[in-house]
Amino acid sequence: MGIKKSVKRVDAVQKATGSAKYVEDLIPVGALHAKMVRSTIANGIVKSIDTTEAYRMPGVELILTCFDVPNHLYPTSGHPLSLDPNHSDTKDKLILERRVRYYGDDIAVVVADTPLNARLAAEKVVVEYEVFEPLLTPEAAVNNPCSLHEIRPNNELSRLDFEISPGGDVRFYNAEFSTDPKIAGRDDLIGVHYSVPTMNACHIETNGCFAYMEGRKLIVCSCNQVPHTLRRNIADAIGIPVGNVRVIRPYIGGGFGNKQDTMYEPIVGLCSMKLGGRPVAITLTREETFVNTRVRHAFDMMIKSEADADGKMTKRGLRINSNGGAYAAHTHAVTAYAITNNFQNYLTSGVQIGESSTAYTNLPSAAALRGYGIPQLSFAMESEMDDIARENGWDPVDFRLKNIQTDGFVDPFDKFVVSSCGMHGCIQKGREVSDWDRKRKAYDEFNKSSDKIKKGIGMACFSYKTGVWPIQIENASCRIMMNEDGTATVQVGATEIGQGSDTVLTQMVSEITTIAEDRLTLVPFCDTDTSPYDSGAYASRQTYISGGAVKQTAELLRNKLLARAASVYDLPIESLTIADERILDKESGQTVCTFAELCTFMNFTNDHVTETEHIIAESTFTAQSICFSYGVSFIDIEVDVPLGKVKINKVYSVHDSGQILNPALAHGQLHGGIAMGIGYALGEQLLFDQKTGKPLNNNLLDYKIPTAMDMPEVETYFVETYEPTGPFGNKGLAEPPLIPQAPAIRNAVLHATGVGIRKLPMNPQNLVHAFIEAGLIEA
Amino acid sequence: MGIKKSVKRVDAVQKATGSAKYVEDLIPVGALHAKMVRSTIANGIVKSIDTTEAYRMPGVELILTCFDVPNHLYPTSGHPLSLDPNHSDTKDKLILERRVRYYGDDIAVVVADTPLNARLAAEKVVVEYEVFEPLLTPEAAVNNPCSLHEIRPNNELSRLDFEISPGGDVRFYNAEFSTDPKIAGRDDLIGVHYSVPTMNACHIETNGCFAYMEGRKLIVCSCNQVPHTLRRNIADAIGIPVGNVRVIRPYIGGGFGNKQDTMYEPIVGLCSMKLGGRPVAITLTREETFVNTRVRHAFDMMIKSEADADGKMTKRGLRINSNGGAYAAHTHAVTAYAITNNFQNYLTSGVQIGESSTAYTNLPSAAALRGYGIPQLSFAMESEMDDIARENGWDPVDFRLKNIQTDGFVDPFDKFVVSSCGMHGCIQKGREVSDWDRKRKAYDEFNKSSDKIKKGIGMACFSYKTGVWPIQIENASCRIMMNEDGTATVQVGATEIGQGSDTVLTQMVSEITTIAEDRLTLVPFCDTDTSPYDSGAYASRQTYISGGAVKQTAELLRNKLLARAASVYDLPIESLTIADERILDKESGQTVCTFAELCTFMNFTNDHVTETEHIIAESTFTAQSICFSYGVSFIDIEVDVPLGKVKINKVYSVHDSGQILNPALAHGQLHGGIAMGIGYALGEQLLFDQKTGKPLNNNLLDYKIPTAMDMPEVETYFVETYEPTGPFGNKGLAEPPLIPQAPAIRNAVLHATGVGIRKLPMNPQNLVHAFIEAGLIEA
Repeated sequence: MGIKKSVKRVDAVQKATGSAKYVEDLIPVGALHAKMVRSTIANGIVKSIDTTEAYRMPGVELILTCFDVPNHLYPTSGHPLSLDPNHSDTKDKLILERRVRYYGDDIAVVVADTPLNARLAAEKVVVEYEVFEPLLTPEAAVNNPCSLHEIRPNNELSRLDFEISPGGDVRFYNAEFSTDPKIAGRDDLIGVHYSVPTMNACHIETNGCFAYMEGRKLIVCSCNQVPHTLRRNIADAIGIPVGNVRVIRPYIGGGFGNKQDTMYEPIVGLCSMKLGGRPVAITLTREETFVNTRVRHAFDMMIKSEADADGKMTKRGLRINSNGGAYAAHTHAVTAYAITNNFQNYLTSGVQIGESSTAYTNLPSAAALRGYGIPQLSFAMESEMDDIARENGWDPVDFRLKNIQTDGFVDPFDKFVVSSCGMHGCIQKGREVSDWDRKRKAYDEFNKSSDKIKKGIGMACFSYKTGVWPIQIENASCRIMMNEDGTATVQVGATEIGQGSDTVLTQMVSEITTIAEDRLTLVPFCDTDTSPYDSGAYASRQTYISGGAVKQTAELLRNKLLARAASVYDLPIESLTIADERILDKESGQTVCTFAELCTFMNFTNDHVTETEHIIAESTFTAQSICFSYGVSFIDIEVDVPLGKVKINKVYSVHDSGQILNPALAHGQLHGGIAMGIGYALGEQLLFDQKTGKPLNNNLLDYKIPTAMDMPEVETYFVETYEPTGPFGNKGLAEPPLIPQAPAIRNAVLHATGVGIRKLPMNPQNLVHAFIEAGLIEA
Repeated sequence: MGIKKSVKRVDAVQKATGSAKYVEDLIPVGALHAKMVRSTIANGIVKSIDTTEAYRMPGVELILTCFDVPNHLYPTSGHPLSLDPNHSDTKDKLILERRVRYYGDDIAVVVADTPLNARLAAEKVVVEYEVFEPLLTPEAAVNNPCSLHEIRPNNELSRLDFEISPGGDVRFYNAEFSTDPKIAGRDDLIGVHYSVPTMNACHIETNGCFAYMEGRKLIVCSCNQVPHTLRRNIADAIGIPVGNVRVIRPYIGGGFGNKQDTMYEPIVGLCSMKLGGRPVAITLTREETFVNTRVRHAFDMMIKSEADADGKMTKRGLRINSNGGAYAAHTHAVTAYAITNNFQNYLTSGVQIGESSTAYTNLPSAAALRGYGIPQLSFAMESEMDDIARENGWDPVDFRLKNIQTDGFVDPFDKFVVSSCGMHGCIQKGREVSDWDRKRKAYDEFNKSSDKIKKGIGMACFSYKTGVWPIQIENASCRIMMNEDGTATVQVGATEIGQGSDTVLTQMVSEITTIAEDRLTLVPFCDTDTSPYDSGAYASRQTYISGGAVKQTAELLRNKLLARAASVYDLPIESLTIADERILDKESGQTVCTFAELCTFMNFTNDHVTETEHIIAESTFTAQSICFSYGVSFIDIEVDVPLGKVKINKVYSVHDSGQILNPALAHGQLHGGIAMGIGYALGEQLLFDQKTGKPLNNNLLDYKIPTAMDMPEVETYFVETYEPTGPFGNKGLAEPPLIPQAPAIRNAVLHATGVGIRKLPMNPQNLVHAFIEAGLIEA
């Protein structure tokens, strides 16, 4: 009972038995089904659409085209409303688009009685285009005369350029788009080029939603991670008051950030409104989910850092050119998150320069995806650290330990002072459990006499911010309602997307109130008409921010119970305490009453004196803080050089997420993140025809994600620190585990082969090319 | 905007277009369907049940019999929990019964894939009984050696006997069951016998529910009027914690009190639990709804009142023998409500005696039904008033006016002091609009020369308590949640069953907060996991009690908005007021901010100083008060004497329900109540085979309720008083309109024909018999 115990997931039985209802399970009987008509060009303009044949198909109820939708732009990203116009999300989307911006863009929708009929009719829609050349990279797009969006005529969506002085002052400026190796045009910062590709979250539940009306209320059920923001975006898109939209978020089958955007909710909403409020549903196929939702930003990076002879960092430069895809979605936020992180891991004495650009291109829109830009950045940053160490003959671990962030570090951007830095401990623990020092030597020895199979051990570390304050507001609300039997119901606006937040938040309530977890119900859905406000699941914020709300509200509830007991039993409140769902006399330990007795009395007394009360507590928690989680991965591999194949022998992952609230779930997060990180490192990459922009492998046959069979042996550890701003000393944990895997594997490959890979994924094709180039094998 | 306006129903569009979802609309795809196996005897014991053949039928998943269910008794009535054991509801029900107590009792249940398969299999269940003689009346049942329930061996469920002294003191005692005309055995109180039959509410939506499990949570969706009480009763019945039950109450298609009891929710819950949580649904047929839910108590009454020569009441005696049916349900509460009301309408100088008994019999269980015993009582009481007037040659209106309750009246039982008695005004208004004085004379004149067609005008009045305090707790909670756009969501635990409470409660919020009704959403469902507590829809309490909660909470919200604005804009709170969804400076009338601006700021400000707040208000209202509604019906009729047919020319209905909050809805309630009262007066009566107890007319072909074609012309009026204990001066309105119709028609028949009918319904059969007996026509 309470925190720091491996309490069984509160949704375990539901998810294991199938009783948990997902969006598709909830589509009303008799609902109509929508199918999008998608562009078959990547860049151009819809000249006309002929729906005559389509309307003749069986079961068709409605066809809307890009000529029929409201002509005002709305944002899709799932950030809380910012009152600062500089932080407002870019409004660049229409519900259906005449201006086609990627292959598969939404140009019309067909609504029919069955999904099949909708698809068959959609195939009969005839579209005439004016076709432009696809602009698939930032290089091609930025400053191309073919503008993708009027609001950014040069196709550069956003920039963030700054110089950090040795004293830590940040000067922002505006650079020009560049692909030159010279970072900021400086001769002393000639960068090395790294690149990472586009990938998809591949959450198990494909995106889907349905909408219907009751009176003036548009009710939208969606597997969205940020239901309160979704509500606002739908209202914006359709042009109706926020209060006329009700979003219901049921159980969710994974999201990883992909479901942080508004997708097809406005279109099903609009269709329902045009059909007298009849339910209209859309469920994306896996193929659509790959490219018609959101993807991870592909980054081109120029990086250059330097260390002095003592191994102390002296200089740091990085340019990121980020491929934002067709629509702004999370805009530049992901890129900005990444560029700043390059200046947060390691103490650097000299100048530090960051330049970054996010471009509109004719590819699927990039947005949030587990790690929010840091996995991309870390691949370059942590690879470079090993390159510097190797160049200088330093042990990569020793080298890092000389430079890593420690307690007292002042974040140059947010100016917050780090007070729970477990980075050092993580690295030391990883070094020890991975047998680093012995293996580094032993493998060097082994590799001398082995040409085909090479052994290596590599590592990488990271820091990752929990929450997004002060860029955005960080707040959350919670409501706890006592039942007459002393059980309680907890409502949060936070979103369980598999990470286990419902369980950990339940443990928090239990910890504060002493009510056992199996007597608490954390309402597993969000309904914007009844749920307290929360900005949702992102930035690994839920145990940290929503947890703050839960703790604060549980304390309010506890105090209310104490106050009520004091009043009912006419005892001084100071003499009372709680334990085991009871009010006790502090001194004697005697039970004054059980919660059940107290709540029953308060709800039902008819003593003609007492004002009854259905005991509840509700409050909003405002976090004006932020913190870093840390971690490291040590990865032991073998490389089959001629085959270009990496075999992972073992992953040793050590994390500092502050206090660990549920060890079993926390270790589970590490395992999941490691798997996803391995996928990112070794295989995942969305491919597009370079001439047409057409997706080539948007299915799970051609786009391989690691399966259970691909999982190596994994050892996971936590180095527990206590973060004073966390509700229970805890920090974020959901996203980080993915981050260090790709650079750690890359550094292990470097150790094994001497070849420093600078491009993900490290699939056999890319590795063989690199090994040929390095002369390890012949072409 | 606000109260006292005919605001359109908030559920108008939903109900008119069919987008409002009822229980049956919500049954999950793939749900299993339950069919009850019902006893084919009215009194006896199930000796054995053979399910072999039934289990061989297609689609059968589960059969539970009375030998398989938990062996502990639970109550079914929908009262809030009473902490006073004297007011606890009787626990006398098992989920399935071996001891058969009425024809159609629940002895087994079959669960199959379709309703049809469940029914076909149910027909194959073979039951062996030990058969006893049915005991169909209190007379037959009380003191019969064949006990129906162990807890009441003599079949008398409960008694309430008392004598009110001329000073108004009440002495309670215990009488013996009696059918003797002498009330309390007194020679000076020789009663006249009145009887009223069993009827069914005939709500449009038949009773139904379904249950399924998510984890340990049993989720039950039911069209029940009292979802919070239902939750407790289900937990009791199955033997699981209250916190493990979640009740969802969607839109409801009428209830009239019938849905105030726990019916088949425990059985579908138990079946789902036995089936691994799969959804199990039951939808009663109309035939089942008639007899397997709840009915109105049939009363046998001996009544005797006297007036002195001045027409002042001097004495009052009444005995009610009430037919409670097979199970306690609302126990004696209905009868007790009725017996006490006989001493509340008219000031009586001398002794007043009431004796009442409720018997277990082998008929369907009687419980709440619009009027809760008062329609029965009023038929006798108001008929007798006319009989006394006729005997003495007094005008019935004048006679009543001499005796009616007035402001300052002290209720002998509850001791509350009446302060908003509009009875006099109602009677005067009715007299005037009905043209009473002229018609009484004119019809007397007409009838002298007409034998076949007789004309008459009659009237009856009533008083009806709003709420049930102090017998039971009266409280309710409400939560109001501001949205960022200044709209708000309102949650109540109160139940909209067609009476319009959701609309009126919305108007109340609008009145206090100035937010327009079309920018308020009153959440149209109740979910015990998220809705505030309310004891539900009964006793015409919702605008009075739940309205108190809504008003109190809206005021809290208003004060919170003012306080937040004062703090944000650094202004003294005393200088601020609200209007039109804005905060204003009181003096200048200048807008300080709109609610939208304030709520957006409070939810989303990131000014590094302000604690954000998702602005909500929630509170529980405790009512330690009660009040009377009053009303009168004047009914103008013609009687076709040989045919025994009453034709109603016009109904003039005048009510005092305090302040009228929504005139259109209020008049609608009167129309509905008049229709139901006419049905009660002229035709409705559930018939049973007197030998077997088998229902004879439990369908809408053989049991006629008035249709639109049967509705006479109706004029409705309100005499508005101001009830100080009501949130806006208002009093109950839902049940009363039914009450006076039957006695008013009866008194009109008396006026027309000189024959005083003492038995409902006044259908042609009964009237012809009475007219023959009176010598008006020949046999």
